[in-house]
Amino acid sequence: MGERVSTSVEPDFGRSPLVAAIAQDAGTREVLMLAWMDREAWELTLATGYAHYHSRSRDRLWKKGETSGNVQRVLEIRVDCDEDAVLLIVEQTGPACHTGERSCFYRMAPPPGAPG
Amino acid sequence: MGERVSTSVEPDFGRSPLVAAIAQDAGTREVLMLAWMDREAWELTLATGYAHYHSRSRDRLWKKGETSGNVQRVLEIRVDCDEDAVLLIVEQTGPACHTGERSCFYRMAPPPGAPG
Repeated sequence: MGERVSTSVEPDFGRSPLVAAIAQDAGTREVLMLAWMDREAWELTLATGYAHYHSRSRDRLWKKGETSGNVQRVLEIRVDCDEDAVLLIVEQTGPACHTGERSCFYRMAPPPGAPG
Repeated sequence: MGERVSTSVEPDFGRSPLVAAIAQDAGTREVLMLAWMDREAWELTLATGYAHYHSRSRDRLWKKGETSGNVQRVLEIRVDCDEDAVLLIVEQTGPACHTGERSCFYRMAPPPGAPG
């Protein structure tokens, strides 16, 4: 990946008040979960170094692991080309998924392109 | 990751007509891009083995690489615990990003939790 670090890199919250946020394990490179961030969650994540998100269903800020203890220490944040998605490279404590699975993406669909 | 393969694993398009779709490189494990899928895009991806998405800005189906040739052969599809996000493990031809970068997440924000 490119290594363009800039303090001006941030999502375009004016256009997209909620942006998709992908959490990827820094060690295994496994994609752990997808959640949402508004400006408040973004700023708290930057300020504290721990992942904060915005819950769409509960319409409120949450710190990942606030009840379970399964926090995400954020090592790196990347913003995509059209500034409506972010990628967090994290150290995950415990499982990321509320089901107890390591990743929320634990179910596999049938192989694509396979007959019938 | 768990290895639960089921033909019934699919996003809940009834609740979420558009689901977030993450494309991850099968070889490098790099997260390449985030796009959106509706049921049509999902079914075409499964049927053809090539990633199809729904463009929110143009409100239409697109096949990744349809003009650039930078297609994504989908090796594996995973669905998250609440069925509103999918993870595609892909073989990416050429760069994934329209800017020519390998990944759309080529810009890095300042290190989180750092002073200043």
